Amino acid sequence: MSDQVKYVLDEKDIPRDWYNLAADLPAPLPPVLHPGTKQPIGPADLEPLFPMELILQEVSTERRIEIPAPVRDIFRMWRPSPLIRARRLEQALGTPAKIYFKYEGVSPAGSHKPNTAVPQAWCNKQAGVRKLSTETGAGQWGSSLAFAGSLFGIDVTVFQVRVSYDQKPYRRALMETYGARCIPSPSSETESGRAILAQHPDSPGSLGIAISEAVEIAAKNPDVKYALGSVLNHVMLHQTIIGEEAIKQLEMAGDDPDVVIGCAGGGSNFAGLAFPFLGLHLRGGRRRRIIAVEPAACPTLTRGRYAYDFGDTAHLTPMVKMHTLGSTFIPPGFHAGGLRYHGMGPMVSHAYELGLIEAKAYKQTACFEAGVQFARAEGIVPAPESTHAVRCAIDEALRCKAEGRAETIVFNLSGHGHFDMGAYINYFSGKLVDADYDEGELAMALAGLPSAAAD
Amino acid sequence: MSDQVKYVLDEKDIPRDWYNLAADLPAPLPPVLHPGTKQPIGPADLEPLFPMELILQEVSTERRIEIPAPVRDIFRMWRPSPLIRARRLEQALGTPAKIYFKYEGVSPAGSHKPNTAVPQAWCNKQAGVRKLSTETGAGQWGSSLAFAGSLFGIDVTVFQVRVSYDQKPYRRALMETYGARCIPSPSSETESGRAILAQHPDSPGSLGIAISEAVEIAAKNPDVKYALGSVLNHVMLHQTIIGEEAIKQLEMAGDDPDVVIGCAGGGSNFAGLAFPFLGLHLRGGRRRRIIAVEPAACPTLTRGRYAYDFGDTAHLTPMVKMHTLGSTFIPPGFHAGGLRYHGMGPMVSHAYELGLIEAKAYKQTACFEAGVQFARAEGIVPAPESTHAVRCAIDEALRCKAEGRAETIVFNLSGHGHFDMGAYINYFSGKLVDADYDEGELAMALAGLPSAAAD
Repeated sequence: MSDQVKYVLDEKDIPRDWYNLAADLPAPLPPVLHPGTKQPIGPADLEPLFPMELILQEVSTERRIEIPAPVRDIFRMWRPSPLIRARRLEQALGTPAKIYFKYEGVSPAGSHKPNTAVPQAWCNKQAGVRKLSTETGAGQWGSSLAFAGSLFGIDVTVFQVRVSYDQKPYRRALMETYGARCIPSPSSETESGRAILAQHPDSPGSLGIAISEAVEIAAKNPDVKYALGSVLNHVMLHQTIIGEEAIKQLEMAGDDPDVVIGCAGGGSNFAGLAFPFLGLHLRGGRRRRIIAVEPAACPTLTRGRYAYDFGDTAHLTPMVKMHTLGSTFIPPGFHAGGLRYHGMGPMVSHAYELGLIEAKAYKQTACFEAGVQFARAEGIVPAPESTHAVRCAIDEALRCKAEGRAETIVFNLSGHGHFDMGAYINYFSGKLVDADYDEGELAMALAGLPSAAAD
Repeated sequence: MSDQVKYVLDEKDIPRDWYNLAADLPAPLPPVLHPGTKQPIGPADLEPLFPMELILQEVSTERRIEIPAPVRDIFRMWRPSPLIRARRLEQALGTPAKIYFKYEGVSPAGSHKPNTAVPQAWCNKQAGVRKLSTETGAGQWGSSLAFAGSLFGIDVTVFQVRVSYDQKPYRRALMETYGARCIPSPSSETESGRAILAQHPDSPGSLGIAISEAVEIAAKNPDVKYALGSVLNHVMLHQTIIGEEAIKQLEMAGDDPDVVIGCAGGGSNFAGLAFPFLGLHLRGGRRRRIIAVEPAACPTLTRGRYAYDFGDTAHLTPMVKMHTLGSTFIPPGFHAGGLRYHGMGPMVSHAYELGLIEAKAYKQTACFEAGVQFARAEGIVPAPESTHAVRCAIDEALRCKAEGRAETIVFNLSGHGHFDMGAYINYFSGKLVDADYDEGELAMALAGLPSAAAD
C-alpha cells in the first residue's frame, strides 16, 4: 500500500543487541565519584546496589551488547512496537512534513519502562537476587518493575512519592496486581524517611526522598538490590531497542528522519529513540537534528548547571556529572510526574554539552493542547510526559509548513494517558495552569551544589 | 522461531469484508417487531434512528459485506490486532492445552468497540448525518463512538449512566478528549429522563434508561441519528473482523481451535471472535465448542427467557427476540459494567437456541482471581468484562490437564483494565463480593415480559 500507516515487525526482528553510545562518543564520559571520598569509583563500589552484569553494562564502552535470550523472549509479548505515520495529524496541520511516531504505549504497563525493567530483573535473577527495591513517582516505573518482578519471581518493594500514592491509586493498584508491595514515601521504614517525617510529618514526599529510601533498603540488606528506571547508563542502553527498531522501520518506509524528538525527564525514552540515530552520525553518517524536550517547570538541560551532583535527597547515591537544578530543588507541581527530576542522565547531559543534541522547554498547557489535538487526529491519548514530544513535533511540522520544507520528523510516544485522565480533566476544566518554579529557589539550589574533585 | 508467541499481520492483511452469520444459519432470525403494532417492521421503520446502509446491513443475509475503504484506512491505526500465545499462562497452569488470545486492547479506546464505532460513524457521515446520540455505561462504547466521531467531524452526545458518570470520571474524560458531550442519565434533556427524575430525583440510572434518552433524542430530531454499541445484527457483523483475523493468524500458527471463548453482555465481542468459526462449521467444517461467558449476576443466556422484549426501559425501541431477563430487571452492582444488560443480541440468542453455542455464567470474584493470575503470567491486566473469558479459558485448560488432552483454546481479550483499576483495588481489599440478583425480582421481571404476535 503506497500510503502505509503502520510499520510492524515480526518478533524474529526484535534487535539482538543494544547500542551503547559510549563507544562512539568523541570524548569519554566523566567518571562517577564516591559520595564520601569524591574520588572515581570502580565497579566493586556499586556491588551493594546492583548485580555485576548491570554494573559492567554501566561502565562498558563496547558498541554492541547482546540482549539475553530470555529477555528477548519476554519482549515478544509486545515488541517490536509499531512505528506509525501520523497522516491524519499531517493533514490537520496542513504540513508538507512527514510525521512518524514510535508507539511504546503497547507494553503491558503502557509505557517504555518495561524495556529496562525486564533486563534489570533478569540480571538480578541471574545473580541470585530475589528482592528488589525501587522508587516511583506517578508509577510508570514502579508498575513496570512490578511487572518484570512477577515474570521472574522477584519480590519488588516500591517507595512511591506520597502525594502520588494518595492521589493516583490506579497505578498503585497496577503494581499490586503484579504482586509488588507499595509504600508511601517518606515512610517510617528507613532512616532517611524517619528523618524527613520527624521534621515534616505531613511531607508529600519527592522523588529524591523516595530514591534515598529505596537505596538505603538495598545498602543495608545484603539480600536486596536496588533498581532505577532512568538516568543511569545501563538504562539508556536498554532503551536503545526503541531506536534500533525505528531505524529498521523507517527503512521499510523508505524514509530517513531529519528531526528526532523525545521528552526528557531522566532521559531514558529520549535516549532510547535518539542514541541509535546519533550513533549513525558519529560513525560518519549524516547529521540529524535531535531534540530533547523538557518541562519549563523543571528545565534541567536548558536552565540547570553541568556539574557533579547526587541523585537523591539524602545524598546516599554516588555523584554523577549531569545537568542538574540541584538535589534540593523541588519542582512545582505539574502533571508530567515522570519529568519531575532535578537531574538529567549523564549520557544525555554529556551529549548536550558536546553540542550533539538540542534541548527545548515547554509549558504544560501548551503540551496538553498538543495532546488533545493529537488524540483527535490519531486516536491515541498521550501520557502527560509524552505530550511534550507531541508539542515539539507539531511545532517542527508547523515550521516546515512555514518554510515549505518536506522534512521527516520522528518522535517517541513513550506511553498512553489512560492512567492520567485526571490531568486531562483538569486541563478541560481550566484548573491546569503553568506553574513555574521560583527563580530564587532555583538559584539557592544551584548555589548548594556540592563541590567535587573532578568538577 | 518454533516457539512463537505473537502472530502479527501487516495492514494490507486487514480483512476486506465482514462475515454475516445470517447467511449460514439453519433457520432464519425471527423478525423485528414494531413497538406499537407488534407487527414485523421494514427497513423504512428504522430510518429515524439509523442511516439506510446500516439498516440494510442489519437485515442482510449476504454472507460477505465489503468493509468500506475509508473504514479500512482508519483500522490501520491499530489493526490487525495481535493473536498471542499465552505460553507463560500455560506453563503456570501446567496444562497440555495451547491457549491463544486475540488482544483487542490495542485500540485507541482500549477495547474492541472502535471496530463498530468507526463503520457506524462512517455510514452516518456518508448519509449526511452530523450528529449522533448514544448511551454508555462504564464508558467503553461512549469513548469509542467519541473517537470515531472525532475522525469524521460528527458531534457525539453520550448519555452516561449517572452512577458511572460520578464514580468513573476517567472514561468520561476520554470522551471529552475526543470532543464528545457527556450527559449524566437520567437527565432533564428528555421526556424519558424527566419522567424518571420526577419519581426518583436521585436515580443512579441504568443502561435501559440511558438508551431511552439517546433514542428519544434521535427520534425527535431529524438531524440526529442513534448509534448502539452491541446487541444489533450490524454490530455483530462489524465485530467479525476479530474472528476473520484470528482464523488467518491461527493458520500462521498451524493450529485449529477446539474451544472458542468470549465474554457476553450484549454479545458483540463474543460474536466477533466466534461467528467466523461458527460459519466454518455451518458450511461443512468441523464442529468446535463455542462458549459465551456471562456474569452470574446478570445471566441472560443461562437464566433468561427467549422472548420478544424491548431494548430500553421506556419501551421506545423496536422489539427483538432475544434471551432477556426482562427490560425492568435491574442487575445488582458489579464491576463488569459492559455486561450489565438485561438482553442478549438476537443473533447470539438465536445461535444459542439452535444449540450452536454453549453458555456459562461466572461470579465476579472468580473472574478477578483469573484476571490477576493472567496479569502476573502475561503482563496484560484484563478489563473486568474480559476476565470472564479468561476465567473460562483457564477452567478449560485445567479440564484439559485433568483429562490429559492437548486441546487448542482461543479466547477474546476484549479490552485492557487500565480504566478499571478501581475494581482491582476493591478485589485486593476484599470489598468486592459476589452480589447476586434477587430471585423474586427476576421472576417479576420475566413475568412482565410483553406479549408479542410472533412470540
